[in-house]
Amino acid sequence: MNAWPAGNNQALPFADWMRAVQLRTEASLSRLLPPAEAIPARLHQAMRYASLDGGKRIRPLLAFAAGELNNGSPERLEIVACAVEMIHAYSLVHDDLPCMDDDILRRGRPTCHVEYDESTALLVGDSLQALAFELLARAESGTESGNESARDAGRTARQLEMIRLLAHASGSCGMAGGQAIDLGATGQSLNLPELELMHALKTGALIRAAVMLGALCGDALSDEAGAALDRFAKRAGLLFQVVDDILDCTASTATLGKTAGKDAEAGKPTYVSLLGLQAAREFADDLSAQALAALAFFGDRSQRLIELTHFITHRKF
Amino acid sequence: MNAWPAGNNQALPFADWMRAVQLRTEASLSRLLPPAEAIPARLHQAMRYASLDGGKRIRPLLAFAAGELNNGSPERLEIVACAVEMIHAYSLVHDDLPCMDDDILRRGRPTCHVEYDESTALLVGDSLQALAFELLARAESGTESGNESARDAGRTARQLEMIRLLAHASGSCGMAGGQAIDLGATGQSLNLPELELMHALKTGALIRAAVMLGALCGDALSDEAGAALDRFAKRAGLLFQVVDDILDCTASTATLGKTAGKDAEAGKPTYVSLLGLQAAREFADDLSAQALAALAFFGDRSQRLIELTHFITHRKF
Repeated sequence: MNAWPAGNNQALPFADWMRAVQLRTEASLSRLLPPAEAIPARLHQAMRYASLDGGKRIRPLLAFAAGELNNGSPERLEIVACAVEMIHAYSLVHDDLPCMDDDILRRGRPTCHVEYDESTALLVGDSLQALAFELLARAESGTESGNESARDAGRTARQLEMIRLLAHASGSCGMAGGQAIDLGATGQSLNLPELELMHALKTGALIRAAVMLGALCGDALSDEAGAALDRFAKRAGLLFQVVDDILDCTASTATLGKTAGKDAEAGKPTYVSLLGLQAAREFADDLSAQALAALAFFGDRSQRLIELTHFITHRKF
Repeated sequence: MNAWPAGNNQALPFADWMRAVQLRTEASLSRLLPPAEAIPARLHQAMRYASLDGGKRIRPLLAFAAGELNNGSPERLEIVACAVEMIHAYSLVHDDLPCMDDDILRRGRPTCHVEYDESTALLVGDSLQALAFELLARAESGTESGNESARDAGRTARQLEMIRLLAHASGSCGMAGGQAIDLGATGQSLNLPELELMHALKTGALIRAAVMLGALCGDALSDEAGAALDRFAKRAGLLFQVVDDILDCTASTATLGKTAGKDAEAGKPTYVSLLGLQAAREFADDLSAQALAALAFFGDRSQRLIELTHFITHRKF
């Protein structure tokens, strides 16, 4: 399926919807990244290498699914999805560097610094981060016609809120902060609340941002709806990480497309090392139930988020 | 001088004005950076180490000086100055890493990765970049009271323009791109236009952004004024770099607070290696004259920019 489903796509089977969002994200990323031949060409090629043709695109899927709660326009959602995905891609490139996790395999291919070199990989991450914010600050595609200043004020205020949310989720009080805690925790024993804080920052913050930014592409949400969505996003972010920990010790490198068993080998605390495999699975089921409970507020409009929650819970890679 | 000069500060001698802006920038950075004890404390300490208590603050000075062209409010200018300075500080931290320029001395102190460690330095850069955009996206301090949507739309549109400009200036088509060209050029012979492109990106783009963001803190500029300011900013950015190249081969490590003579040793093309010292000095004088000529448009309002141009031309460190 190449074309974006026109009109109401709620009738699409989940697998087809997911594939459509993934293809649209891929096409949008390719369009929004600088062309491979633009100077400096090697850097731009490496940015495309690190961003295109890979990954489950969980964050774009969450953004599009959240956008369906309140009629988010696909043109805005694709910008938001790409911005969040670029932040995610940059974080992977930097996390894989020798001074961090020192990994050579990502998405089934050599990591960016292996394929190119360390300095290029460093600049790839730096540039992808800048581009994510540049995209969100650009005049949005697909905005309504008309020049009413009130509408303009609302639109630009939303864009600023998106940038604020994404920047906060990426920085030292979000993703980068979680990574710092992770590095400090290697070989240490964390208790469950400490582990949860680390993951709430390292993975959870960006997943939550994907959901909230997706919702900001549509009609305004009531405070109550915003709170329900935020509850969902927090649970879903943690769920994603718990499942990641389970897969890290149960799936193969070939299936994951990244080095399996790394965390245990590196002496990193995980939900499996803390709880054991069985209890970690039960915890994932609990989180899944809590995430779904938060969505009850939205009824049918949250169909895709419900399906995504099941997908995240039961994913095999 | 600790207090910000109230009212018209045009009567202040340049050295006092410069000192006042530097102190205000230092205080604002300290306030806007996360506290050293906030979790993750080591990362936040390192962010403060890399940003505070150092540097000439050329970019904040340019932002404040540009703000004087059109009555920019000091409360907005300090946000803009800090955002640009955080981008600059992050670029220094990443440029000093072993996989880049591998330097151990910066602003007369050990570089961030020497004082902390490489992974922390990587995250410091990543986090400072995110924080710069978060600051620009926050509700501005010191905005006018009143709720007129037209005014709000203008204000938020300006903030988005600032973010767009800064993100573009920092990314692969700006500073990071210039750094990529620089890395690729080591040991190569560049011709003058190639060297100019490299510096226009590596140093010029962020200096230009500092000027343009400063001007965006004040009254709207006419197209003609904007063009004159942009001409100035481009010349000033290149001037800064030519003087940097001259200092790299004429000043001592102690005076510079960073390793002198590095570029020549690394076989990096510079204006001095390409033109010779005397011709590089003449080129700096030409650029200075061109920058001042562009400011003629503004008359007395550009007093601080004129003084800064002289300062940049004749600086000894």
